[in-house]
Amino acid sequence: MKNILLVGGAGFIGSHIADRLIDEGHRVVAVDNLLLGKEDNIRHLYTHNFFQFIKSDFADSANVENIFSLGRFDTVFHFAANSDIKCSVNGPSRDWHHTFLTTANILEAMRKHHVPCIIFSSSSAVYGEQSAIHIKEDTGYLFPVSYYGGAKLASEAFISAYCHMNDLHALILRFPNVVGERCTHGVVYDFINKLRLNPRELHILGDGRQSKPYLYITDLIEAVFHLWQRPQETVACYNIGVNSTTPVNKIADIVCTEMGLTGVAYRYSGGSSGWKGDISRFSYDLSKIAATGWKAQYSSDEAVQVAVRRMLRR
Amino acid sequence: MKNILLVGGAGFIGSHIADRLIDEGHRVVAVDNLLLGKEDNIRHLYTHNFFQFIKSDFADSANVENIFSLGRFDTVFHFAANSDIKCSVNGPSRDWHHTFLTTANILEAMRKHHVPCIIFSSSSAVYGEQSAIHIKEDTGYLFPVSYYGGAKLASEAFISAYCHMNDLHALILRFPNVVGERCTHGVVYDFINKLRLNPRELHILGDGRQSKPYLYITDLIEAVFHLWQRPQETVACYNIGVNSTTPVNKIADIVCTEMGLTGVAYRYSGGSSGWKGDISRFSYDLSKIAATGWKAQYSSDEAVQVAVRRMLRR
Repeated sequence: MKNILLVGGAGFIGSHIADRLIDEGHRVVAVDNLLLGKEDNIRHLYTHNFFQFIKSDFADSANVENIFSLGRFDTVFHFAANSDIKCSVNGPSRDWHHTFLTTANILEAMRKHHVPCIIFSSSSAVYGEQSAIHIKEDTGYLFPVSYYGGAKLASEAFISAYCHMNDLHALILRFPNVVGERCTHGVVYDFINKLRLNPRELHILGDGRQSKPYLYITDLIEAVFHLWQRPQETVACYNIGVNSTTPVNKIADIVCTEMGLTGVAYRYSGGSSGWKGDISRFSYDLSKIAATGWKAQYSSDEAVQVAVRRMLRR
Repeated sequence: MKNILLVGGAGFIGSHIADRLIDEGHRVVAVDNLLLGKEDNIRHLYTHNFFQFIKSDFADSANVENIFSLGRFDTVFHFAANSDIKCSVNGPSRDWHHTFLTTANILEAMRKHHVPCIIFSSSSAVYGEQSAIHIKEDTGYLFPVSYYGGAKLASEAFISAYCHMNDLHALILRFPNVVGERCTHGVVYDFINKLRLNPRELHILGDGRQSKPYLYITDLIEAVFHLWQRPQETVACYNIGVNSTTPVNKIADIVCTEMGLTGVAYRYSGGSSGWKGDISRFSYDLSKIAATGWKAQYSSDEAVQVAVRRMLRR
């Protein structure tokens, strides 16, 4: 049993991490500012003796210090971020505070309180626009094109420096798009909501040909816990993903089919990317994580389909 | 003629940039917090009509806003940093404030005031410990092992995001060790000062076999202005350096010779690196900058020798 601090614990991915940590018998203090996270995602854990939820915003270092003073943590799962990349078109403030400063504040508290290990939810966004067909963990350049990607790479940079300077350990996991129940944004979520409002027409950002890998949430959680159990170097970094991609048009088709809609007119905003800072197509080289014995159960298309079905239940 | 904001303008490298900008006929506002920079480095420019020096600390965003409100700048030369990597062993505060926050504050001011271009003094420290023999600009992983390297990579990350999100341009220059007159730290500077205090014995950090490329300051300045004149993509990045390295023991020999000392006893602190966060050996692949027609005039050994001679004059 370990004492875990789970930051972003009421969010889409964070709440699934909370479930798994409790299932495995760990003691969990979950923190969330509830900007994107929801208590509904974790309320079922409130009666559990080993689970504690605290509403707190880790963009403020005083809050971080308060939580780290509660007790001695073995590992920090840092899954807090402004995961809604699109919303930053008007300025970097949300990504600065909620994607980056959270990390900086956590690292400083880890250094002061001698917390030895961090699991960090990084992102494919650190790679920016790549000419490589399949992106490996050591692919360069790293020139992100969104504030979100910039904040994630800046977080990685300080995580690496803090680990090496203070003999800490980090597991940096670069997620692709993740889909599934409890998700709060993204193309699948958007399409369902738009079609509920107007089942005859669907407005699609870009030209619909953007094509990315979508990973199902249970596959992601499996990968995180699979890697956490392995001995690692000071800073270990893995791409987590799936060896296939799904075009936006196909996502639209899947959502329409699962909602029982026919004859929906697709309207396009045009252009090859969905929004400023969007990476319209990419694919991971997954040989590093494959060598550890992990592989996603669902293909990208299957992940989208299963996610749509689960999300339609709610 | 361009209106230039030169941040870190009284520092070792920044003051040489100031000289060159004035030589080329630009209008320069130089800012420095004078923590490492010295007015002596730029006092000879004070009578020049196109040169203005303002003491200001850009780790504070209010100061940055004040300076950007003075007028419309065409380009920011950002050469401010805590360049004394060793001093951060006890904590990240100096690199956080003076290497990283300076950049973040400048970027936010550039966004608000529509300043379209930044020249950024990055560092070989962004590469961390590399297994590659010759490091290219797109070599990965980027996992820095010092706070300085972390702060430089985090700076690059936000520079890239700001440029892509706001249609700005950046020239990111990754410097190696630079030597020459006005330098304020580093192995050459240390050896001269130690031998002035005690000409019979020299205390050497590490085992003396650390070997890095040393670039002479005039070569660096040539490279910066050569690249600045070229049309570039949104974010252009170059390694600047020299195709040779100089072992620390050889630097000791050169300094002793130039000071006319014989029979100096070398004492070693031991270990393969000089201090925590030190990268003890690296070498650049310089094919990218070579393809633009630039090449250093001095080899690494020559750079050290010329630097020692110039520094002994003061």
